[in-house]
Amino acid sequence: MSPSTEISVVEVEAAAPATICMGCWDQMKVPVPIRGPFSVPFRVFGITQSKMNPNICTICERAFRRVKKGSHFTQDATILFSDIRGYTQLSETIDPVELAQVVSEFQDQCAASIWARNGIVNKQMGDGLMAIFNFPIKATEHTQRAVEAGLDIQRRCKTSLAQLSDRFALPHGRLGVGVGIHTGPVEIGEFSKVRSDFTAIGGVVNMAARLEGCAGAGEIVLSPQAAERVPELVERATERQVNLKGIADPVNAVILGG
Amino acid sequence: MSPSTEISVVEVEAAAPATICMGCWDQMKVPVPIRGPFSVPFRVFGITQSKMNPNICTICERAFRRVKKGSHFTQDATILFSDIRGYTQLSETIDPVELAQVVSEFQDQCAASIWARNGIVNKQMGDGLMAIFNFPIKATEHTQRAVEAGLDIQRRCKTSLAQLSDRFALPHGRLGVGVGIHTGPVEIGEFSKVRSDFTAIGGVVNMAARLEGCAGAGEIVLSPQAAERVPELVERATERQVNLKGIADPVNAVILGG
Repeated sequence: MSPSTEISVVEVEAAAPATICMGCWDQMKVPVPIRGPFSVPFRVFGITQSKMNPNICTICERAFRRVKKGSHFTQDATILFSDIRGYTQLSETIDPVELAQVVSEFQDQCAASIWARNGIVNKQMGDGLMAIFNFPIKATEHTQRAVEAGLDIQRRCKTSLAQLSDRFALPHGRLGVGVGIHTGPVEIGEFSKVRSDFTAIGGVVNMAARLEGCAGAGEIVLSPQAAERVPELVERATERQVNLKGIADPVNAVILGG
Repeated sequence: MSPSTEISVVEVEAAAPATICMGCWDQMKVPVPIRGPFSVPFRVFGITQSKMNPNICTICERAFRRVKKGSHFTQDATILFSDIRGYTQLSETIDPVELAQVVSEFQDQCAASIWARNGIVNKQMGDGLMAIFNFPIKATEHTQRAVEAGLDIQRRCKTSLAQLSDRFALPHGRLGVGVGIHTGPVEIGEFSKVRSDFTAIGGVVNMAARLEGCAGAGEIVLSPQAAERVPELVERATERQVNLKGIADPVNAVILGG
């Protein structure tokens, strides 16, 4: 990350632990206790803090289709993908016990950055993750929150990944985090009879994943639509035209850091 | 899929619904009722059929670290990745409601193929999934089971995806399923404090994902190690040398179908 982007980061406090589920409140105006004495009877019935974000509850993961009409619905949201550049070569080089530590540390740092800005860690796969901002916790400036989370992830992981690169003298470039962010309407729902946790799908999600795929170590790659929503954060960003697999026209991506 | 591979498929019956959790039995020799009257008190405490495979229980998803020494361990397993080739262009072309149906149908067909061979659907992300064979349900011929699942997935999805391609006249090639399979030691555990469902990581997992990434529509791409374990299934397969991102040497992949 360059110093110019670091100074433009707007710091936010870590989200304070909520007494009631922020998702159930924002979506249904129903107070579901998740901390304190009132949460005890709920915990007996398995309603407790979600692993996606400790300020939402397990109802949020599964039951929205019962309160929304139909099993899925369209939602304006920001999607963030993140993974470790050089992870495959790392996994070929180091001991599985050490690899496990790297993955665990990375996933936990990312989650802290995302939760502090009211996003949820919706999916984790190996060193990769997908986060959603603006569902189920509402946020008026969800794109800004996502970009701040991306900058925070880069800052948290930079030193430890650089040290790993040095220690193992990896031949194909240094380790670093790649982040991709896009914003727009996504389809939220449970898209499988066999798994019942919700996710987001659609063109916006795929584009975010593709943008992450072309991010170099230390880079945050924004779609033009995401960049437009955070003018102050991208003042000193660079532009790069990228061709993304499955997407017909080249995209003028906006790059932070690197 | 070519007729030559179709005739070499060994048909297996769908796994019969188990009365006790097959994972807890195979891993700990503990009988945990998941169906029938004895399962009722367990269900009160939230111990029920897992969404990863209905023949294992929710204990299997989370609690192995308490019974194994340490939080993760090495396991010989076969890893299968699968997704829809052309999904990104599809998501740019069709209505989100229809896209949701396609994803849901694909995920459910894949799960049926995997469960019938005692594999588990460990991760789902959009149109992609990762399956594990030989944990927590033990299988002596887990690579064969995985390849059979891959052939079954191709057979189940071929017609419906071809019809979709015709209906929307997609410009960049036809839709189809890509499958990647590799086998060897993987690290099983919970690699994040923030999410507590187990997964597999390591070089074998990454290689399986990369092999899937280079599979064309209708193809199952096996690593040489996986192919060696299923000589009868790959008698008429073709070979292709592939360069995989992050992996130093080219790999002699073995291709079924296409």
